[in-house]
This record gives sequence, C-alpha cells and structure tokens, in this order.
Amino acid sequence: MSLADSQSRHDGPARGRPRSEAVERSIMEGILKLLEEGVPLAELSIERIARTAGVGKATIYRRWSGKEELFVDVVRAAEPPDPELPGTSVRDDLVVLMEQLRRRGLMTRSSVLLHNVIAQMKSSPKIWDAYHGNVVEPRRRKQHAILRRGQDNGELRTDIDVDVMNDMIFGPMLVRTVMRPDADLPEGLAEQMVDAMLEGLRPVSSRTS
Amino acid sequence: MSLADSQSRHDGPARGRPRSEAVERSIMEGILKLLEEGVPLAELSIERIARTAGVGKATIYRRWSGKEELFVDVVRAAEPPDPELPGTSVRDDLVVLMEQLRRRGLMTRSSVLLHNVIAQMKSSPKIWDAYHGNVVEPRRRKQHAILRRGQDNGELRTDIDVDVMNDMIFGPMLVRTVMRPDADLPEGLAEQMVDAMLEGLRPVSSRTS
Repeated sequence: MSLADSQSRHDGPARGRPRSEAVERSIMEGILKLLEEGVPLAELSIERIARTAGVGKATIYRRWSGKEELFVDVVRAAEPPDPELPGTSVRDDLVVLMEQLRRRGLMTRSSVLLHNVIAQMKSSPKIWDAYHGNVVEPRRRKQHAILRRGQDNGELRTDIDVDVMNDMIFGPMLVRTVMRPDADLPEGLAEQMVDAMLEGLRPVSSRTS
Repeated sequence: MSLADSQSRHDGPARGRPRSEAVERSIMEGILKLLEEGVPLAELSIERIARTAGVGKATIYRRWSGKEELFVDVVRAAEPPDPELPGTSVRDDLVVLMEQLRRRGLMTRSSVLLHNVIAQMKSSPKIWDAYHGNVVEPRRRKQHAILRRGQDNGELRTDIDVDVMNDMIFGPMLVRTVMRPDADLPEGLAEQMVDAMLEGLRPVSSRTS
C-alpha cells in the first residue's frame, strides 16, 4: 500500500512548526512496512518506527503526541478520503456517504493489511478510542448535520431523534461491511438502501395514509 | 449469574443418552465460576472444567463435542431465551424480535460477566464460528422466513432482497447494541424503529406517490 496519493488528501497533524510531507510520509510508510512484515501493533514502539523511517524520535514527537495518534493517521491515510457532498438534496448526500461506506467495506475486505490493521486497532482500547474520537465521531457529527438539514427543509420526518435516524440510515450498511464480512456489497446498494429507507418497506399500495 | 432459570428454557445438546439436567447445569456453572474468577477463555480446558464441576472428562464429551460447543451453550443459556412470536402480523413479529435484541443489548451492558464472555468469544475464531453457526445463523433464518411471509402476504415490498431487508430492519438496533455501547436503548425503541422502517423516513406530506 502506498500513501503517496492518499497523504496529500488529508490535512494530517498540525503542530506549530513547518510541516514536511516527505518526512511524515516516510514515518507513516515505515509503520506500514513494519506491519507488512507482521510486527504486531503492540510491539510497534516510537523508537522502532523512528529507526525504520530513518528519523529521530523527536521528529515523530514534534508531529504526533504518541503512537495512538500516529497510528490513527496511518489508518486514515490508508482509507479512501471523505467524499465531496453534492448538496443537491439530503437524499443525494446520504447516497454519497453510504456509497463511501460500501467502498470502504470493499477495500477493507480486499486489503489484507488494512484488514489486519483495523483488527489490531480494535484490540487496543487506547488506539480504538483515538480512532473513534478523531475519525468516527467527526464523521457522525457530519451525518447528524445532514439529517438536521433534512428535518429543517422538509425532506425528513421530524418525529424521530436524529441519532436514531442516523443509525437507521447507516446501520444497515455498517452491519454488512463491519459485522458481516460475507454479505454482498453490490453496486447500487447504497442508493437502494437510502431510497428504501426514505420511502419505507411497506408496499405503497397498502399505505393507509 | 445463575443458570437455574434459563437452563430449562432451551433444549441443550442431545447425544443419544439420557440427559441429566443437573449434571449439565453443574458443568455450565463450573465454566461461569472459572470465568467469574477471571480465568481467560483460552485457558479453559475440558480437564479444568471437569475438575471444577466435579465430573469426569468423559461426562462432558458425552454431551458436547468440545470446548467450543459447550461454551456456545453457556452463552445461549445466559442470554434471554428466544421469544414467542405473536404471529398477528409481520410487523408485530418484527417488533417482538427487535425488542428481544434491545433487551439482549441492555443485559450485555449490565452484566460484566456476559460482556466479558462475549468479548472473549469474539477473539476466539473457533468459538465465534460455533456461536455463529448454532445461534446467529438459525436466528437469521427465522428472520428471513418472517420477511418472506411479509412479501407473500403484501405487508412488505417485493423489490428488495430479503437479506438486504433483514439488515435494514435489524441493522439499526444491532449497531446500537453491539457497535455503540453508549447509545440509548429506551423503551419503545423497537416499535419506533420497525414502524419508521415500514413507513419510511420521508414525511408523508412530501410523498410523490
């Protein structure tokens, strides 16, 4: 896996000193190299990462507060970047986000390395917390904002809590990508799920309203 | 945790010899005792289980094929039993199954032991596979049968694959119970989710149909 493309697409850490993308990239690629060699996450020390990347430990600590934050950046750079939202409708934005989730699921299945990295991350509570706080929570806040926009502009019902609605929309794809590694993720699934969720699973002809 | 109540509510293994519920219960309670003492699942051997329960190893092997199958029975007995379905409508059956999922989530949160047992089970691929094959898959087949009934009797749309529909209905609650241990699971959530899923998240007034 190369970070050459993905690295430029996210902002990375900001630490009050001039950044050097080349240095950051070599540090992150050093981690991937160690992981590819089968070194377990628990044995990845800042010292070993620095040695592999050919930099001093201080160079790493200037950019990341510790192993957890650094590792989360590695995962974030390896995942597809967050997509641009069309903004044409809440429905269209939801389809794009769901499609992103589907693609991330396909990528995790096809990349043994990414698969292992995520599995190891889940077994380390500190790193999982860092990933959750830095990646998952901001993503959820963005989803909530879209749903609130839909409630405001009449695209979505207002009688369901935004957090519950969020799980109703993204939960089905999450289950198929994360909990059910054998479930089909065919093209068009994102759109089908979003539309079925918006219109309901009851046949239109039998609606009493 | 006592198995006294729950044990009688499931059938347990059948092995072609007269069963003795008391023996089975003492074996399963022996496992719980070891787990409560903090013995990790990986160190639970049939020999140790037999010693704790005061039976011979052969007594265990007559009833279970091995540690995996035995352990799955322990988890199954500790979880609330599968509910009776009212059968009045597919909607009503789905609400009962979702409510069961919500209660199982609440129980896993409140029982440190059950929580730990499930976490350890997930980290053992063999036991997880046994749990999946013996508990999760039969549950999913039952759900699929209900959804097919709904497609047959006109309660559900027929243009969505039953497996996809299954994740659309149960996925949101699964996400909240399994993946988001901090998410609210208020009373009435099962009913609200099922009805919103059937009727759709779009406001009725803006439907074009």
